[in-house]
Amino acid sequence: MKQKILELLSASEIFISGEKLAELCGISRTAVWKHINSLKEEGYNIETQPRTGYKLISRPDALVKTEILDGLQTKVFGKEFLYTFFEIDSTNLKAKQLANEGKPEGTVVVAESQTKGKGRLGRKWVSPSGKGVWVSFILRPPILPVKATQLTFVIAVAMVHSLKNIGISDVQIKWPNDILIHRRKVAGILTELSAEIDCVNYVIVGIGINVNQDTFEFPEEFKDKATSLKEACGHKVSRIKVLQSVLKEVEHFYYLYLENGFGEIINLWRENSVTLGKEVEVISGTEKITGLAIDIDEEGCLLVKDREGKVNKIVAGDVSLRGKKGNYV
Amino acid sequence: MKQKILELLSASEIFISGEKLAELCGISRTAVWKHINSLKEEGYNIETQPRTGYKLISRPDALVKTEILDGLQTKVFGKEFLYTFFEIDSTNLKAKQLANEGKPEGTVVVAESQTKGKGRLGRKWVSPSGKGVWVSFILRPPILPVKATQLTFVIAVAMVHSLKNIGISDVQIKWPNDILIHRRKVAGILTELSAEIDCVNYVIVGIGINVNQDTFEFPEEFKDKATSLKEACGHKVSRIKVLQSVLKEVEHFYYLYLENGFGEIINLWRENSVTLGKEVEVISGTEKITGLAIDIDEEGCLLVKDREGKVNKIVAGDVSLRGKKGNYV
Repeated sequence: MKQKILELLSASEIFISGEKLAELCGISRTAVWKHINSLKEEGYNIETQPRTGYKLISRPDALVKTEILDGLQTKVFGKEFLYTFFEIDSTNLKAKQLANEGKPEGTVVVAESQTKGKGRLGRKWVSPSGKGVWVSFILRPPILPVKATQLTFVIAVAMVHSLKNIGISDVQIKWPNDILIHRRKVAGILTELSAEIDCVNYVIVGIGINVNQDTFEFPEEFKDKATSLKEACGHKVSRIKVLQSVLKEVEHFYYLYLENGFGEIINLWRENSVTLGKEVEVISGTEKITGLAIDIDEEGCLLVKDREGKVNKIVAGDVSLRGKKGNYV
Repeated sequence: MKQKILELLSASEIFISGEKLAELCGISRTAVWKHINSLKEEGYNIETQPRTGYKLISRPDALVKTEILDGLQTKVFGKEFLYTFFEIDSTNLKAKQLANEGKPEGTVVVAESQTKGKGRLGRKWVSPSGKGVWVSFILRPPILPVKATQLTFVIAVAMVHSLKNIGISDVQIKWPNDILIHRRKVAGILTELSAEIDCVNYVIVGIGINVNQDTFEFPEEFKDKATSLKEACGHKVSRIKVLQSVLKEVEHFYYLYLENGFGEIINLWRENSVTLGKEVEVISGTEKITGLAIDIDEEGCLLVKDREGKVNKIVAGDVSLRGKKGNYV
């Protein structure tokens, strides 16, 4: 109901009376008044005039539930189970806990900041308050565990589309799971699987997106490798719009994948890859391979052709692209 | 220290004085007395004579820590982290929780009974108190998630050896994870994986072994499919000996696998398989395939050659063996 009141206030450029809101929502004026107060507490600036009613002046720049749901174009994702936190250890950890408790596919966990945000292989992911979108979803795909790696590629494709939707160009994917703008990392994806030998219990997808950081705010070691949407656009970006766009595209491409399989996804991935066709250096465990990244296969492995013409199948590793000076960055 | 006192008592056929025990253990007589009382509480029958000392009369038929550790021939498994419960929801659930908290490889969870014991695909596993061995371990193998299915085969091979060790013959493996004696199921293995796209967080292996049930104690629907070690031997079997043998062999074959790879394991699996070379019916999702089970491949998939000579690769499913009357059981 609070959502409905917010919608009505958003749609109106003039004051709406409490009586009118009560009538349109089919609730009492006291109930309207309570919802208005609750909105104010969430950070909505609503002007109140005793005899004329209410008018929405501004919205909070915060990942609050009401704000996320207002205009969210998904069918399932975030609609029924949406958990928002001001601060949390890690959205992936929380999502895992919720999945173990039986929460369904499409459950979404969002936080303003993470104290233990992590990237791939347990690496730290810096998640300062109010600057980014740190979100995790529960998926329960009816696929075999060996196929679960494909989901990282599904999500990467969804990420490219969600950023393009909000007007960001030059978004590319670096194998396997980095999202780049102008060759700098703007977002990362962490996919975690819980499975039995022949069925998936659940998959947690965590996404971290740098939205409104300035370069000087990144830790020293990332300054020349990281970017934010604000840097890319030259102005502040609405984190709510980013999150809504991500939820919409993740849902879209995830269902597309379940329906049509990996083929379509893999083609979209190829189109948006920064890795393919490049000279690369791959560190995989203790091995180092350099060569031409020629393609990815059905399992998402990177195929790298070395100088001897041998095609190496890379299952896991860190990839650097050969720069103009011949070094790998 | 309690363990040391138990060992000394076990090794002696006459009374040992508190003074002697104190001296051998390097502790006070009061400390000896406290440990003796603790052993009595666990169900050890220890005769106490004021001036002569202590004598072990009998051991409890219970999966208590002291009893499990007494004579346990492992290097790591169960040695440092061993959790025993009188009743628990499921040893796999507990092991998962401990793994999430960071407990290391070789952590073991044992329970006298499970209220929510489960088999493959969420099926119920009946785990009555005092009748079986219900145990789970934490593994942290440095392998790729796609290889994790191989572990079920490692454990199946270990199970065959651990039962043969304690004098049970005719133990066979039914693909993928059932342990049979005379074609009836005596034990099951449930492998659960937690992984990122390119590394395993942990694997939980749960094993349920029917030890001292009589046929009439099995639920009606399992009466002609299930058996116990007692049925197979014709007498009651020590659950402690079974558990110790399982821990020893699981550790042995797990390290063998990590060191030498899957090849050796797969050969041992083949030697002990009841499935290979048989006419089988496989229900896999909505599909039904009948044919000759000719082999398993490197990923543990069952290869079934149908009437048209086509070899079907079965990743997951339920297998029935063709019986004498041409039906599948």
